[in-house]
Amino acid sequence: MKLVLKLSIFFLSALVAAQSDYKQDSTQLRSFYTASLTNGNSYDWLNYLSNKIGGRLAGSEGDKKAVAWGKAELEKLDVDKVWLQAVTVPHWVRGEKEEAYIETQHGKFKVDICALGGSIATPKDGVSAEVIEVQSIKEVEALGEKVKGKIVFYNRPMPAEKIETFRAYGASVGQRYNGARVAGKYGAVGAIVRSMNLKIDRFPHTGVMSYGENTENEKIPTAAISTYDAELLSRFLKEDNIQSKFYFKQTCQNLPDAQSSNVIAEIKGSEFPDEIIIVGGHLDAWDLGDGSHDDGAGIVQSMEVLRLFKTLKIKPKRTIRVVLFANEENGLGGGKAYAAQVEKDNEKHIVALESDSGGFSPRGFGFTCNDENYEHIQQWKPLFEPYNIHIFARGGGGADIGPLKKDNNVLLGLRPDSQRYFDFHHTAADTFDAINKRELELGAATMASMIYLFDKYGIK
Amino acid sequence: MKLVLKLSIFFLSALVAAQSDYKQDSTQLRSFYTASLTNGNSYDWLNYLSNKIGGRLAGSEGDKKAVAWGKAELEKLDVDKVWLQAVTVPHWVRGEKEEAYIETQHGKFKVDICALGGSIATPKDGVSAEVIEVQSIKEVEALGEKVKGKIVFYNRPMPAEKIETFRAYGASVGQRYNGARVAGKYGAVGAIVRSMNLKIDRFPHTGVMSYGENTENEKIPTAAISTYDAELLSRFLKEDNIQSKFYFKQTCQNLPDAQSSNVIAEIKGSEFPDEIIIVGGHLDAWDLGDGSHDDGAGIVQSMEVLRLFKTLKIKPKRTIRVVLFANEENGLGGGKAYAAQVEKDNEKHIVALESDSGGFSPRGFGFTCNDENYEHIQQWKPLFEPYNIHIFARGGGGADIGPLKKDNNVLLGLRPDSQRYFDFHHTAADTFDAINKRELELGAATMASMIYLFDKYGIK
Repeated sequence: MKLVLKLSIFFLSALVAAQSDYKQDSTQLRSFYTASLTNGNSYDWLNYLSNKIGGRLAGSEGDKKAVAWGKAELEKLDVDKVWLQAVTVPHWVRGEKEEAYIETQHGKFKVDICALGGSIATPKDGVSAEVIEVQSIKEVEALGEKVKGKIVFYNRPMPAEKIETFRAYGASVGQRYNGARVAGKYGAVGAIVRSMNLKIDRFPHTGVMSYGENTENEKIPTAAISTYDAELLSRFLKEDNIQSKFYFKQTCQNLPDAQSSNVIAEIKGSEFPDEIIIVGGHLDAWDLGDGSHDDGAGIVQSMEVLRLFKTLKIKPKRTIRVVLFANEENGLGGGKAYAAQVEKDNEKHIVALESDSGGFSPRGFGFTCNDENYEHIQQWKPLFEPYNIHIFARGGGGADIGPLKKDNNVLLGLRPDSQRYFDFHHTAADTFDAINKRELELGAATMASMIYLFDKYGIK
Repeated sequence: MKLVLKLSIFFLSALVAAQSDYKQDSTQLRSFYTASLTNGNSYDWLNYLSNKIGGRLAGSEGDKKAVAWGKAELEKLDVDKVWLQAVTVPHWVRGEKEEAYIETQHGKFKVDICALGGSIATPKDGVSAEVIEVQSIKEVEALGEKVKGKIVFYNRPMPAEKIETFRAYGASVGQRYNGARVAGKYGAVGAIVRSMNLKIDRFPHTGVMSYGENTENEKIPTAAISTYDAELLSRFLKEDNIQSKFYFKQTCQNLPDAQSSNVIAEIKGSEFPDEIIIVGGHLDAWDLGDGSHDDGAGIVQSMEVLRLFKTLKIKPKRTIRVVLFANEENGLGGGKAYAAQVEKDNEKHIVALESDSGGFSPRGFGFTCNDENYEHIQQWKPLFEPYNIHIFARGGGGADIGPLKKDNNVLLGLRPDSQRYFDFHHTAADTFDAINKRELELGAATMASMIYLFDKYGIK
């Protein structure tokens, strides 16, 4: 009888404790959301980063300015420590605006292209050749020597039936990354790739490509063509009575490596300072737009997490660190350098959260972790229901935090609504006006909430 | 032993049947989404409605054109029956573009306003008066005769901390609808209302207002002011050394009632033709924009439901009807006329679904129904998970279908992501370029899926 009573009291107090924790956490989450929506700073920060600094590809002037700005703003938050970590980065420049047209016996049709990041220039006067349209790299391998002297035109669309657009991207981006490498091996003189875009419009989408182990001779210039013009080119190629060639000219260059920095700030944990939780995004952005969605949004949301902790006077038990990573877009230099330093200093990173999927309405998170932690995290799901945060899925993180993966830590990525992302991704359209203030702020509050829970409860 | 065996077989077959149903339904939903995303017609329809017809307030030329277009397009679907139902509608016209400024000793500051729907005109030369700023109707009632001869300026913002923007709207729209009525009773000469907008921008937001039982003398002109200019006006009023008056001029009129129509099309049910399921939106739209989100999106999504049933060769058991309602914005004439006819013909409407919350990423549904049906519907939730449809909440429907409510039927409304809706609602910014094709198509597929399940399983 005594045992039963004792057990009852034990379970009862556990229940009461759990309920009181739930209530406390629930109140805390509400505070994050209210503070971010009514008195947040993420939108103003992004306004500055996008409109005063703009494009900031690794090694550029914009990149330097962004690093200085990030450090200065984080210092204003009066956290325990702000510092820069040196990162060596590739330095690719676009040069003059690219030119391209379809040449036919009826005249020239101007089309919109942009060089892919890492591509070499065309000869000074451009390159003109017959076009072979393909759907895949496999097809080029099957064609082999037949592509010699030709321009290979990769025209596989992103599959519209995928619900998550990132999956549609994953299904198509291989032709952008590897297209020139493979076509170059078989003697093609150029590779034109359909833009990674689910819409038909006039924006060419840049992005990184790689020549792999190709010899200098096998390196060929490569560019993305807008989806609108990809459709046009494809139609021309299908017409029997039209003879068409493609011409393009670009002056991009790979310059010697440059210096950049990861920008880091932290609040020291009061109980477990050696357990480190990081939140971040990447500070670099392609040159065509101002990088508001990719990844200005992730940068200012991450900074906002730290600001909310300070403003709401939350003293974390564990160390909370924000990292503005350098050079995600064309090299991942920042993520690699950060992880190397962690290794060297033997730091224990228990959680790393990245926001690098645009500043749209947050829908949830994707987690890369073991089963035990995945179950541990699922318990928090009800806390997020009032905020329409519903995705607590497996798989996710971010390119920058990837190198931090251990068996027993948790990597996670914010999952905003993905439908509009590829309307802007790596284009001149990725600008501040494409950001909705509330969506950005909801994302920041969602991240702060998750970091708060990881800080309070740790991981398994 | 025999009984146990029998029972086992019974439960086993029920289980197998349920599993096979789940698989079948799952496949069917996938077909709706694939068809809508890869081969849908909603976006093209909306392009026509928005860009070729545009604003279509009840009684206007646009309204007539929209009715003719809706009927013609539905007839192309080769469904069992398409018809018009006559609706008498109010006929309010805006007249010339409104003018307004803040008059101070330092000069005039032009501000952006628009007359509220139903408002009377100002005197021919406009009205100019001192301004009293208030936060609520209660405040005006407390001020009483002190507002005599003044312009009352309702400046309560939508509360940004609400997560669903429709709740923020609900918390503030009373001042727009009732503001002039109450101020007019106490002798004010005009009412200016802060636009229903969570953003600070230059777009004034129109919308319906009512004079209730006010006498002719108590009717005063009323307009919405952009949030940007509301902030400006408020700042001027707070400055001790600035004397300011407000001037505005509008020439809107209430003309005699006009004729419009509900546009209706149906596929007759094969098993239970007398059980009617409707899906709809409203065809009318405010005059300032082209009504792409409000409610062009709901119109073309509803039409797409019928088109998907036809294209995918689904023969419904119950009668599926699409209704393009007339005059939701300023009178609800269409919804009332439809319900009256249902009553008269003694038709049995088991389900009514409305889409009237914008064409954004669908998140789920709100249901108005009894507990039994609510539980019945919850069973279908897992089917929608692959499509990120997660809200199956209580409460919802739509203004047009409201009059159809019975104890034992189900009204439901599509719930798209609400964050951006009030950036566009009732403004010149509600135009086709604010629509994302995939979001619109996902909404249509979500609606078709829900209608399919209601058709297959009926209600309790």
